[in-house]
Amino acid sequence: MRLGFIGLGQMGAAIAANLVGTGHELRVWNRSPDKAAALVAGGATLAKSPRDAATGAEVVLTMLADDAALSAVLDGDEGLYAGLAPGALHISLSTIAVATADCVAAGHGSRNQAFLSAPVFGRPAAAAAAKLFIVAGGDEASYRRALPLFAQIGQASFHAGATPSSANLIKLCGNFMILATIEMLAEAMTLAAKGGVGKEKFLEVMTGTLFGSPLVRTYGAILAAGEYRPAGFAAPLGLKDMRLVAQAAEGERVPMPFLNVLRDHLLQTIATEGGDVDWSAIALSVARNSGLER
Amino acid sequence: MRLGFIGLGQMGAAIAANLVGTGHELRVWNRSPDKAAALVAGGATLAKSPRDAATGAEVVLTMLADDAALSAVLDGDEGLYAGLAPGALHISLSTIAVATADCVAAGHGSRNQAFLSAPVFGRPAAAAAAKLFIVAGGDEASYRRALPLFAQIGQASFHAGATPSSANLIKLCGNFMILATIEMLAEAMTLAAKGGVGKEKFLEVMTGTLFGSPLVRTYGAILAAGEYRPAGFAAPLGLKDMRLVAQAAEGERVPMPFLNVLRDHLLQTIATEGGDVDWSAIALSVARNSGLER
Amino acid sequence: MRLGFIGLGQMGAAIAANLVGTGHELRVWNRSPDKAAALVAGGATLAKSPRDAATGAEVVLTMLADDAALSAVLDGDEGLYAGLAPGALHISLSTIAVATADCVAAGHGSRNQAFLSAPVFGRPAAAAAAKLFIVAGGDEASYRRALPLFAQIGQASFHAGATPSSANLIKLCGNFMILATIEMLAEAMTLAAKGGVGKEKFLEVMTGTLFGSPLVRTYGAILAAGEYRPAGFAAPLGLKDMRLVAQAAEGERVPMPFLNVLRDHLLQTIATEGGDVDWSAIALSVARNSGLER
Amino acid sequence: MRLGFIGLGQMGAAIAANLVGTGHELRVWNRSPDKAAALVAGGATLAKSPRDAATGAEVVLTMLADDAALSAVLDGDEGLYAGLAPGALHISLSTIAVATADCVAAGHGSRNQAFLSAPVFGRPAAAAAAKLFIVAGGDEASYRRALPLFAQIGQASFHAGATPSSANLIKLCGNFMILATIEMLAEAMTLAAKGGVGKEKFLEVMTGTLFGSPLVRTYGAILAAGEYRPAGFAAPLGLKDMRLVAQAAEGERVPMPFLNVLRDHLLQTIATEGGDVDWSAIALSVARNSGLER
Repeated sequence: MRLGFIGLGQMGAAIAANLVGTGHELRVWNRSPDKAAALVAGGATLAKSPRDAATGAEVVLTMLADDAALSAVLDGDEGLYAGLAPGALHISLSTIAVATADCVAAGHGSRNQAFLSAPVFGRPAAAAAAKLFIVAGGDEASYRRALPLFAQIGQASFHAGATPSSANLIKLCGNFMILATIEMLAEAMTLAAKGGVGKEKFLEVMTGTLFGSPLVRTYGAILAAGEYRPAGFAAPLGLKDMRLVAQAAEGERVPMPFLNVLRDHLLQTIATEGGDVDWSAIALSVARNSGLER
Repeated sequence: MRLGFIGLGQMGAAIAANLVGTGHELRVWNRSPDKAAALVAGGATLAKSPRDAATGAEVVLTMLADDAALSAVLDGDEGLYAGLAPGALHISLSTIAVATADCVAAGHGSRNQAFLSAPVFGRPAAAAAAKLFIVAGGDEASYRRALPLFAQIGQASFHAGATPSSANLIKLCGNFMILATIEMLAEAMTLAAKGGVGKEKFLEVMTGTLFGSPLVRTYGAILAAGEYRPAGFAAPLGLKDMRLVAQAAEGERVPMPFLNVLRDHLLQTIATEGGDVDWSAIALSVARNSGLER
Repeated sequence: MRLGFIGLGQMGAAIAANLVGTGHELRVWNRSPDKAAALVAGGATLAKSPRDAATGAEVVLTMLADDAALSAVLDGDEGLYAGLAPGALHISLSTIAVATADCVAAGHGSRNQAFLSAPVFGRPAAAAAAKLFIVAGGDEASYRRALPLFAQIGQASFHAGATPSSANLIKLCGNFMILATIEMLAEAMTLAAKGGVGKEKFLEVMTGTLFGSPLVRTYGAILAAGEYRPAGFAAPLGLKDMRLVAQAAEGERVPMPFLNVLRDHLLQTIATEGGDVDWSAIALSVARNSGLER
Repeated sequence: MRLGFIGLGQMGAAIAANLVGTGHELRVWNRSPDKAAALVAGGATLAKSPRDAATGAEVVLTMLADDAALSAVLDGDEGLYAGLAPGALHISLSTIAVATADCVAAGHGSRNQAFLSAPVFGRPAAAAAAKLFIVAGGDEASYRRALPLFAQIGQASFHAGATPSSANLIKLCGNFMILATIEMLAEAMTLAAKGGVGKEKFLEVMTGTLFGSPLVRTYGAILAAGEYRPAGFAAPLGLKDMRLVAQAAEGERVPMPFLNVLRDHLLQTIATEGGDVDWSAIALSVARNSGLER
């Protein structure tokens, strides 16, 4: 299949690497072209523009840092919209706002281009291992068309519904739930620690009883070790996602008090620790507020 | 082994039923003696008082509703303290305050009686199926002595540490984490629902990706069905536990903003729905606050 | 003085009425021209466009509902920017975002037009009575030039500083403090009421001791009467302002937990009572959450 | 009139000083008798016990640090209950729990002793200047009987109602409102400061417009100066009061999200700054959480 791939950051490059050299013809583009070198060495072609990456492709995948970056590759004479043929499919893997996904869906719709909004769950290591979870919104036919590609980059995919942005809403809820799990662990571990129960003992009991999910194990270990650098997912990106959740919640008129706590702790963490820590470093703020870790 | 068992409420009766007729001589006591009928029919003896249940026993287990009920069976001429022989062991299965557990430990210590504070995780159905998780605090020797009994009533046990109350602190943290998980699900499912994503689809994706723990499945199903009566664990009992967490947190000087949200939502739920709903009905308050479920 | 006035909503019309017929030549514009009828009857001239209102004016005042409405009258061929002469002064009375004020300041700066961002405190009745408080940001010379006009429409004015948007930051903080005062009153009055202390008695004591400000008296009376319609300041406008505060707080990395409560209560109030209630109706949500007012 | 006065801490000593040498016969008692020296020098008599202070008195006033200290002077052979004659009046000036006030009212009732629960608003300087506000609960006749004394120690008094504890509920609500005002100021001033508006300018505008109460002026000045030591009202005492509010709120089933914020900020402040700071030092935690004041 002829594919385009736009956006070769930490996540995008890892995903694209699972598509190159597997029988597909892959044309890649990134704002900083040097990020494409490894893929080109593996058989990909470097496109001159988003338009160029899309021209002649059956499917174009995009993985960009935020809503503005996605808009920047879509619009204009050299943009994806201009290059993608009618009937061809754009799969957006980025975590973006619900409203932005609605807007992109309309943009493709007016050009008779197919569109799936398909954000993923997983950190860079999961992307490299093709272990992502993919949540895709869009019409059934497009979803089926994408399944073979999803199988190459992830361990499972889900069809969120016919509205593309429904996948983004689910993804944002998922990121909210991950950070809420971190905060929950942080508050409980801090109380246990000040009361004389060590973090390892605490985690042994909790993961051995009711809280034995991979998520709790992964972040429990990070919190027990207190290792927040280098960031797997940087706090400012987490703040961006929580802002997108808040925008959706305000639009739908849903009070979310847990979300407020998460945003405030991200703000505190960025203000006091800097912007280069992992989003799980909200646990450091929780601990400091109790007089620990000073 | 000669055993005493005090406190035959929903949980206590189910646990005691797993001890009767298994080679132990079991003497039971409950404030309302009619609750003992089934156990007596199964081979247990009805004691005349907590003291009577403890006299001559190697181990006495207690499972009571709250701190005051435990104190009531311990103290006085007809109390457990008065009947238990030096060297005999009291295993308290109740969820009580950290400070109360410290107090009971001192009470036994001054009488050369052994003590384990061993609160359990699990709803009545888990107790009946001997599937409880037991977290026990106390000296190593007492913990080993209790292991055969723990094996008869639960699926796994953990030694929290040498201080009895450390088990209570862990148990309280665990209940906090369960209710935090419910709140997290409630906020996310409410946002998803108002945004057009059904609860079943939402749960399918979440449990299929990162949140596949039995805890999320169990409470996710309760929230999706909206069935909060009859209560498996009534909201006022949940409020009591969150109050105990708050006392521990205040004593240790640990701010816990998630805990605050949980307490406020329990207060709202009890005030508006009544005291007979399950503690997971905080999800109903979350939904109503967004204009749903009216 | 030759004046322009743009934006004749509830607030704008009341302010403009204090400027017409006082020796000034007043040219007014509003998107719906019928709102101008009373002013024209009083001696004002109806302008054909924002540009027309600004052409030849020494000072143009604007009072618009939100940031977008202000931008709409500034930009374009028929906009204020196009009509205002170099050296002439634009006084923006609207409550807008800090970032928007920075942007407008730059727009005027590049055209050598003078600019004061001068949001006001006061409800429509205060505007009609020329009892507004005006907080103005901008250079000292422009502030002095505006003083005679401020004296005609308000009871006092303050110079926030040389940066126009500093006035907006103060104004937003002020609106936050008003709503925080309302929430504080609502929580305390609800507790007192459920504990058997009537609202009137409660207010008598509080205003008679430490809380005797006009603000507490005004909103205390509204809360005691429970009269939230018609809205003096509608809940969705309050939500807009709290969103602007939140944007500023996120930009400056300031956690504001009180602000979170206010936003959530506005969301609940709008979701459950509708968008036509006064912002002080957050007190109704506070009461309902406690089981009162059902 | 023959008076007893029990409890000569910072507040009690200042109040008693306004009663000695004004024609009354004053018998004073304090746990540490050296605190009574100045009053004795002024004409008071040192009693041997609370009972001795109450014996033969028409009115006994008490001002104690907390509920336990009040109970300690009431109960036992040498307690106030034992010494106070039937028909004589006990005026409790302490800030105590609603439930404790109910309990003391019952204790006096069963002995045919009169009782007013009359907590006061005001810091030590106000007590010394006889500028306290007194909120008294109890029967009308007792309130009238107390009025001449109230006039000697305060600037105004209020009759809360016939139930003594209603005064305590109002007093607790008042302390909640004071601390909420401090938090509100702290959040707004921190945002303004990070946005470039100095604290003095901020306060000039706010107190000059809508927030011109003595309360805002007093605490605004403390926050602007950042002077939290020595404590006028120490943070741990503030925490005690907020705990009493929380108990009342839990008993009445009233969610109070502002209260939660206040308690968490007091916990953080005590954990990180120590227990000797003024309760208004929650503003320091607000600032530190934003990256200021490090």
